[in-house]
Amino acid sequence: MNYKEDILQKAAQKKVYVGIIGIGYVGLPLAVAFAREGLRVVGFDNSSERISQVNSGRNYIFDIDDDAFSEAVKSKSLCATNNFEELKKCDAIIICVPTPLDRFKKPDTSYIENACREIARNMKPGTFISLESTTYPTTTEEIILPILENESGLKHGEDFWLAFSPERVDPGNKLYNTKNTPKILGALTAEGLEIGKSIYGLAIESIHPVSSPRVAEMVKILENTYRLVNISLINELALLCGKMDIDIWEVIDAAATKPFGFQPFFPGPGIGGHCIPLDPFYLEHIAKKYNFDLSMIHTAGHIDMMMPHRMTIKINSALNRIKKSVNGSKILFLGVAYKPNIDDARESPALKIIDEITAKGGKVTYHDPFIPEITCPNGIKFCSVELDEKILIDSDCVVVTTNHDVFDANYILENSNLIVDLRNMFKEKSAKVYKL
Amino acid sequence: MNYKEDILQKAAQKKVYVGIIGIGYVGLPLAVAFAREGLRVVGFDNSSERISQVNSGRNYIFDIDDDAFSEAVKSKSLCATNNFEELKKCDAIIICVPTPLDRFKKPDTSYIENACREIARNMKPGTFISLESTTYPTTTEEIILPILENESGLKHGEDFWLAFSPERVDPGNKLYNTKNTPKILGALTAEGLEIGKSIYGLAIESIHPVSSPRVAEMVKILENTYRLVNISLINELALLCGKMDIDIWEVIDAAATKPFGFQPFFPGPGIGGHCIPLDPFYLEHIAKKYNFDLSMIHTAGHIDMMMPHRMTIKINSALNRIKKSVNGSKILFLGVAYKPNIDDARESPALKIIDEITAKGGKVTYHDPFIPEITCPNGIKFCSVELDEKILIDSDCVVVTTNHDVFDANYILENSNLIVDLRNMFKEKSAKVYKL
Repeated sequence: MNYKEDILQKAAQKKVYVGIIGIGYVGLPLAVAFAREGLRVVGFDNSSERISQVNSGRNYIFDIDDDAFSEAVKSKSLCATNNFEELKKCDAIIICVPTPLDRFKKPDTSYIENACREIARNMKPGTFISLESTTYPTTTEEIILPILENESGLKHGEDFWLAFSPERVDPGNKLYNTKNTPKILGALTAEGLEIGKSIYGLAIESIHPVSSPRVAEMVKILENTYRLVNISLINELALLCGKMDIDIWEVIDAAATKPFGFQPFFPGPGIGGHCIPLDPFYLEHIAKKYNFDLSMIHTAGHIDMMMPHRMTIKINSALNRIKKSVNGSKILFLGVAYKPNIDDARESPALKIIDEITAKGGKVTYHDPFIPEITCPNGIKFCSVELDEKILIDSDCVVVTTNHDVFDANYILENSNLIVDLRNMFKEKSAKVYKL
Repeated sequence: MNYKEDILQKAAQKKVYVGIIGIGYVGLPLAVAFAREGLRVVGFDNSSERISQVNSGRNYIFDIDDDAFSEAVKSKSLCATNNFEELKKCDAIIICVPTPLDRFKKPDTSYIENACREIARNMKPGTFISLESTTYPTTTEEIILPILENESGLKHGEDFWLAFSPERVDPGNKLYNTKNTPKILGALTAEGLEIGKSIYGLAIESIHPVSSPRVAEMVKILENTYRLVNISLINELALLCGKMDIDIWEVIDAAATKPFGFQPFFPGPGIGGHCIPLDPFYLEHIAKKYNFDLSMIHTAGHIDMMMPHRMTIKINSALNRIKKSVNGSKILFLGVAYKPNIDDARESPALKIIDEITAKGGKVTYHDPFIPEITCPNGIKFCSVELDEKILIDSDCVVVTTNHDVFDANYILENSNLIVDLRNMFKEKSAKVYKL
């Protein structure tokens, strides 16, 4: 039996041993999705904390069902390790490591390169490999493929198959999860596509094949570039509306009555999370190689970068109305997650605003029911305080940076002296409330 | 009985006499919508051709039902005139005149100002006035209101009421028309809003009130700015994809499988029509007064402006493949409307491309079943030719600028020597077809 028949037969029998490198927001939900279907899954990670959490059945990802998780671990379907030699046994290896930007906002592909080196050192012939980390088009063909071939001595299309299949995780989404979100898959060969469909199809309801990895890479970046550009547009319009005595939220709600050709986006203090502030700049980077300037992404990025600073000016203006300065004022931030109802503060604009307000002498506290502590970009750490009447009354200014559903708007309004509402938590006009 | 009670009673009895200034793409469908409900409507226009067409029951707007139109004229519900003294008899006056950009892409509000002067000279006390022409926020309050008050001697809120209610006409849309598209309405006073709702409610199913005319003005510009920005984004990405051997249409179709947070836009040779290439620049203009630079609109406008030129480069490259130059080549353009299945070539990118190709010495012909003749921006006129085997075979290059549904892609592909497809008419790869 040849490699292809072997792996397709294993897929048909649900006997594919799946290795997932990187067990964070993307990798762990995917691991659980495979494990729930009865497949054996091993997660690889360098974090010993994550490994021990998985192996002891403690779930650390918000969107994963706790019962499904502990059941997967108890039944030995799911385990985790930092021993990459276990890759030798895997039939399918899926890479779910971070693709961050460095401090100069350039792509850092070192995590995927290192993962590929571990794979090349260990993989057996007949392995299917898929990259899920968001990255610029051509990465799979021009970075991943050479590392795998050169460092393993194996040949693509004969000894292994390579594909790109972008993750589409939307943290906090109650409707769409790993299983029921259609999955884009682009492989280097028709055989690789066939194998990839048979394996992903075990855990995911719908697979949408495309003609190449570079098309699949572009799909994910288009999705998130669309969001970056539209959020930046509405943020810029919100700043103008603030000057023109126009309530931008009223405008958006009215525009959303148009039954065709419009999708509403809402303004806020800036863009956060691990996708939208990063992915489009992967594309902007590779475009340079083709002598191409992506002016829309560049402009959107500029708006995004300045938003936290513009928000500190709003806070300054609000305090100025009651003849106070930022310097010396007690300022309470409500919500530091990058969007409502999640526990993730990565790239959150709240942290950047807190940084700047602290640097200007503001006495900062924060409350977020989902995030017990934060470290701001300049290194200062804060712990979440209890939200009660005393802290609200004691604060010179309360800033709503993220509007978690659990926040009681009336309670906050009644007990606060001055509110800067960056999320339209307070729909009614009030002399106390200063809106974005 | 006071003015308000009087007009509300007339509305309740469907006895409001409606005057509509400007009977083009917006005004005439609105006039017919009122007339169909049994109201008497008079259309005002300076074009004697339009007036005689209306009065003789000849419909000239694509989206209006011919039978409904001739019935409205026959029953004397609808007529047209260039005698603005007829405004004296109107209870409600609705302004639907153009708001173009001048040659330096600055707003030209002279049509609405002139309409307001005619109204001020003629209106009786107790008139409801609504502006539908797209314009920047503050126009109704800061341009229209002073003209009406100063030149009529009447006082707003006592003698007349003023509102802004943006048209949302989408030419060629088979599902949504004037009647069933929700209508935004912002008036200067609560009384004006009440009267406006009662009048518009006679012809339109759903009225969405907002708090002020400036909010209503902003709504329409947001809707079309959203479209400008997203079309420009996808056009820019399409140009990059062309260099990276990625089919942008395959990418968009795949991204559209994402069941949340994405709305697909499709690339093309540029933006046309009387809304999307214009409206956002009204906002960009007024923003300057507030010391505000709308960088997203500016960037999108730049992409839009260069698209026709980029398309001539594509045509040049395609001809170069077969060792021909634009100069001296016979080039046939298919579709010159600004979008499929309509008869409108205003601001159409096809005209700009034809202009440039002609200037470079190309021998241009065009075929469009809906547009018998065109005048290009530089003044050259063309008449549509018949589409047959001979013209296809005789042409060195066929350029698809607009993909009307009636075009037979197989027939065109079989009989053409070389095709530049700017609209993804040809889904399959072919050596003959050069795509955007």
